[in-house]
Amino acid sequence: MGKRNVIGNCKQMKKKAVVLFSGGLDSTTVLYYALSKGYEVHCLIFDYGQKHKKEIKTASKIAKRLNLDYNIIKITIPWCKSSLVDKSVKIPEHKIIKEGYVPTTYVPGRNTIFLSYAVSYAETIKARAIFLGVNAVDFSSYPDCTPSYLNAMDGVLKALKNNIKIIAPIEKMSKNGIIKLGLRLKVPYQYTWSCYNGKKIPCGTCDSCKLRAKGFEEVGIDDPAIAKKSSRK
Amino acid sequence: MGKRNVIGNCKQMKKKAVVLFSGGLDSTTVLYYALSKGYEVHCLIFDYGQKHKKEIKTASKIAKRLNLDYNIIKITIPWCKSSLVDKSVKIPEHKIIKEGYVPTTYVPGRNTIFLSYAVSYAETIKARAIFLGVNAVDFSSYPDCTPSYLNAMDGVLKALKNNIKIIAPIEKMSKNGIIKLGLRLKVPYQYTWSCYNGKKIPCGTCDSCKLRAKGFEEVGIDDPAIAKKSSRK
Repeated sequence: MGKRNVIGNCKQMKKKAVVLFSGGLDSTTVLYYALSKGYEVHCLIFDYGQKHKKEIKTASKIAKRLNLDYNIIKITIPWCKSSLVDKSVKIPEHKIIKEGYVPTTYVPGRNTIFLSYAVSYAETIKARAIFLGVNAVDFSSYPDCTPSYLNAMDGVLKALKNNIKIIAPIEKMSKNGIIKLGLRLKVPYQYTWSCYNGKKIPCGTCDSCKLRAKGFEEVGIDDPAIAKKSSRK
Repeated sequence: MGKRNVIGNCKQMKKKAVVLFSGGLDSTTVLYYALSKGYEVHCLIFDYGQKHKKEIKTASKIAKRLNLDYNIIKITIPWCKSSLVDKSVKIPEHKIIKEGYVPTTYVPGRNTIFLSYAVSYAETIKARAIFLGVNAVDFSSYPDCTPSYLNAMDGVLKALKNNIKIIAPIEKMSKNGIIKLGLRLKVPYQYTWSCYNGKKIPCGTCDSCKLRAKGFEEVGIDDPAIAKKSSRK
């Protein structure tokens, strides 16, 4: 567990929140959003057998920089054949959006598993909210990223009577809208990592890279992560 | 992963079900119930850091005897202070039911975590049902054992549009009702294990032992597990 966020005497007055955190563009924006709303943030980072550990390292680094509490949870999903975890399945380089098609990057039940750990954690530390960076615009074909799914999960929390709410602030935003929000919140995008592949620099060809590039292009600025990596070469 | 249940040519015709299985009296009854309804059963056994491994061994043995597919999933809940997993918290020996009191044996979010893995597994193998042995009579003070909780989780499955339903056949049964059902289904109770402690024979003093003993007493028969263990002494 990382260090606790203690700012003077404010700690006891702050509402706690659990943030599902991957160190990517979306969840880092959500993390900064939760902080901007005055929450004492506790990060949950998942090691679910991703092909590379870059995501976990990036997330831990960002949490440490902010002096936030964080837990890394190791999850084993032995039956999972998603291209994100199964080395025999290649990460696709197809067009970003295909109607009604669930890509091989989908990990069955992933968000439900993540949220269930978040519920457990939030109940234990008496948090009032769980923040997550799901997005129904770019990932409309992932069944666990839809507004009706989030409403249903909210129903579970109500049934548990734990007084915790699910907050998905970027749920209905386009990628460039998310980036604009992040820039206002001073998100250090140079430290974030979105690429599904774990090479030294982002591959530029996976869905995640393409979506991110499109977002920065629409905002009209260079991606600070790419600029940073390129300057190191 | 254990062996697959193959009975002649029937395999392809059978609907699949995932059963949350602990090898205890309740979940073993539910397992036999699912089999009696014609499902091809796939067991999910959880190693969530219980103080003893007897539960996991018992569950695996029963699954093997029935030649069923099973997965043991290791779960780490680092913040959990339940007396079932935290060695510094003693398993209580108090009265069975206390109104509105959540006992130290409660593991926050446990059933939600279990069900989320079951959703992932069931989606992957294209199962039509998830069976679990929650009981709202004996465990009314556990917030994740209530009918409204199960309805809410059913809502999540509907939102995921995976055509999977949650079946909790003993949800509203008393312990003696469960035992009577199990005896009709020929559940081998001598192989089941309910005790929260992991000694050679059940402790007889924990909540789980007391509930079980009360159930058999009401049915008017000796607990075959106690008789079996006693004869070994």
